[in-house]
Amino acid sequence: MREYRPPRGFRDFPPEVMLLRREVIGKIVRVFERYGYEPLDTPAVENWETLAGKYGEEAEGKLMWRFTDPWSKKEYALRYDLTVPLARFISNNMDIPLPFKRYHIAPVWRHEEPQRGRYREFYQCDVDIVGSPYPEADAEIVDVVGESLRELGFSGFRIRLNDRRLLSAVFEEELGLKDPLPVYRSIDKLDKIGAEGVRKELTRTVGESLAEKIMSLISLGGGADSMRAICSRYSHNAKAKEACDHLEQLTSLAGEVTFDLSLVRGLDYYTGPILEVVLDQPKIGSVAGGGRYDKLIGTFTGKDIPATGASLGIERLIDAGVELGILKASRSTVTDVYLVVVDWSFLSYAWRAAKELRRSGLNVRIDPARASEESQRKRARRLGVPVIAFVGMSEAETNSLTLYSPAKGERAVVKLEEAPLVVRRFLS
Amino acid sequence: MREYRPPRGFRDFPPEVMLLRREVIGKIVRVFERYGYEPLDTPAVENWETLAGKYGEEAEGKLMWRFTDPWSKKEYALRYDLTVPLARFISNNMDIPLPFKRYHIAPVWRHEEPQRGRYREFYQCDVDIVGSPYPEADAEIVDVVGESLRELGFSGFRIRLNDRRLLSAVFEEELGLKDPLPVYRSIDKLDKIGAEGVRKELTRTVGESLAEKIMSLISLGGGADSMRAICSRYSHNAKAKEACDHLEQLTSLAGEVTFDLSLVRGLDYYTGPILEVVLDQPKIGSVAGGGRYDKLIGTFTGKDIPATGASLGIERLIDAGVELGILKASRSTVTDVYLVVVDWSFLSYAWRAAKELRRSGLNVRIDPARASEESQRKRARRLGVPVIAFVGMSEAETNSLTLYSPAKGERAVVKLEEAPLVVRRFLS
Repeated sequence: MREYRPPRGFRDFPPEVMLLRREVIGKIVRVFERYGYEPLDTPAVENWETLAGKYGEEAEGKLMWRFTDPWSKKEYALRYDLTVPLARFISNNMDIPLPFKRYHIAPVWRHEEPQRGRYREFYQCDVDIVGSPYPEADAEIVDVVGESLRELGFSGFRIRLNDRRLLSAVFEEELGLKDPLPVYRSIDKLDKIGAEGVRKELTRTVGESLAEKIMSLISLGGGADSMRAICSRYSHNAKAKEACDHLEQLTSLAGEVTFDLSLVRGLDYYTGPILEVVLDQPKIGSVAGGGRYDKLIGTFTGKDIPATGASLGIERLIDAGVELGILKASRSTVTDVYLVVVDWSFLSYAWRAAKELRRSGLNVRIDPARASEESQRKRARRLGVPVIAFVGMSEAETNSLTLYSPAKGERAVVKLEEAPLVVRRFLS
Repeated sequence: MREYRPPRGFRDFPPEVMLLRREVIGKIVRVFERYGYEPLDTPAVENWETLAGKYGEEAEGKLMWRFTDPWSKKEYALRYDLTVPLARFISNNMDIPLPFKRYHIAPVWRHEEPQRGRYREFYQCDVDIVGSPYPEADAEIVDVVGESLRELGFSGFRIRLNDRRLLSAVFEEELGLKDPLPVYRSIDKLDKIGAEGVRKELTRTVGESLAEKIMSLISLGGGADSMRAICSRYSHNAKAKEACDHLEQLTSLAGEVTFDLSLVRGLDYYTGPILEVVLDQPKIGSVAGGGRYDKLIGTFTGKDIPATGASLGIERLIDAGVELGILKASRSTVTDVYLVVVDWSFLSYAWRAAKELRRSGLNVRIDPARASEESQRKRARRLGVPVIAFVGMSEAETNSLTLYSPAKGERAVVKLEEAPLVVRRFLS
């Protein structure tokens, strides 16, 4: 018999994984809402024209799940991120009061080559503010991202910050690079290939003298000092000054960030501050990223609406959190009470007892397949259910339950109406 | 400028809709978990071979979102329901302890002609028990479905119940119909076209005498009496007896159900009891349905594993509940406190005050776009935020906040550290 698997790069999430994911997402939602972001959802499928021309060549030519409907011949694509659908949503709802603050937690699909930690279907957690050009909007995004990581239990991480305008002022206007992309790509690799590697690459692409200049800028390192140094060096440049003023106001409001001129970020649509979060441990690349995109919505509406936001990569966060031991499902099952039926001739009493416990809000499981007592006990243990309730003749005749807490090693025979209270004591 | 819309039949869910959907789903989840069902998720995309041959001709030839990947030429399909993915999941995890009880709440995609209440992307809420052939498993499913509707506030509904084996015993074995499908299709229309309409159709397909016999069976009406009548009339038939014994045990455990021989249900894979829920008002067709499918998992594994389950149609439930006035989002915004900044030179104090309130767990929104006081107040009102906090010079100088509850008409000037307590009093 042949085996039918999920498609390559796609995953099933069995209960024990779901319970952890749900807790993680719940924590992130709580932070997003603490800042007043409202939930939004958009379709998994978008018309191809909506996504076309938004993400750059590699994404659209290779990574997008794009398909033609065999009946209508219409072209569709699966959602590639949550930002472009937001822009499309705004363009369909131009009467929506601005600033509009929303979060969106949902899967996106990318036709990547699957590998460890990289999937073809994965969740993004996005927060965005539409309608504010001001640094306080970017500062709030930085804070929300930082708070989310702290809420999950991460402490060792850096929020790297840069600005697309500053990059353009320095590399295009000041250093005169016509096509700065190869330089951006090189300096983006600083973490991966080290300063010497970057210097070599730069020397090849722009020559030794420019490479030296660029290296001296980058080697200022990260942080407030390097920002001050760069901003004062280029204060005569209007675009640099605009970016520097923006960054300064941003950093005066936001929690700790690390300025880093070597931060570039791939997406085409950024126009102002950009950010990225990296963990100290483990080394798994960025776990969140974002920035300001003041021109994207205009591609739908014809009228620019400033916007800024960030996206948390929960797949990597979960992998890292589990590795660090800070993320662990607080329970292995939703079930509070496993009702073990010792003698199946008392099923109807057991059924009624289960109902009674459920009425008090407890999650109660009763075997629907007439398993032996031994097998029910084994199952309850394996699931990690915190309270076991036994029903046999004596319980049925006296309208009671025998309750047992494996963790506390306690056992009690109680009247059915008192059972919820005792269960709650066992659970606490 | 052309407009970019969601694809036809697809919907955006703006915040006010999301808040209601989330409450509805939350209530359903609570009921599912109260019965010990554990969460499961599977990919949106399945290999085409996995879904092929499972749903019948119309579904696979027309309704499925099926596509060929332009790069690999592999054939995929978007998930059409949550039951076949469950069967595939079980076949990939044959060491999973049985009975396996899971719920799955997720979108599915169908290439329907969009119309009122019918979408191309919609959520299903499924509960299933894998690994039990016994009536108590079906009874639990019936109870979970009924409880879910009651939890949402519905009281006027019927759970219709029938059994595929009984249908087959009566119509194929006893009445000798070689192809009972046209008859099933006719009696399934009883609600729509009435008894006379059905009689006419039946007379055309099977002749007057058989049509009379069938009508007399159907005209027994629903309920326990008609079940007793039919079961005693066909007690000599082994298959009918098996179904009747099963239904009797089921109904002895489950809450109120209405036996109805005219219930058929469309899907091919049902093998035993089938159920469907209809509301008294409004008349919108079934809002939940399900049944036993003991052979489906075997198509993946080669070894039959009995299973039973049901699916709640939350799109219809929400539409109906809103129409009946029983479903209404308990709040129009996630935000508890809108912090109105009267004078933007005190932004940094306002920022700190917002943080302080958030630290106590409150959801606090602060305008990120330097709006006028008037415009901030208007926005807070429009969002329906329950507490407004004002920050101006006097508040900043005295480390305090002016709090206002529009609902209570109360106003209070309080020290920042006491603000969370007063806000909670306003919220209660």
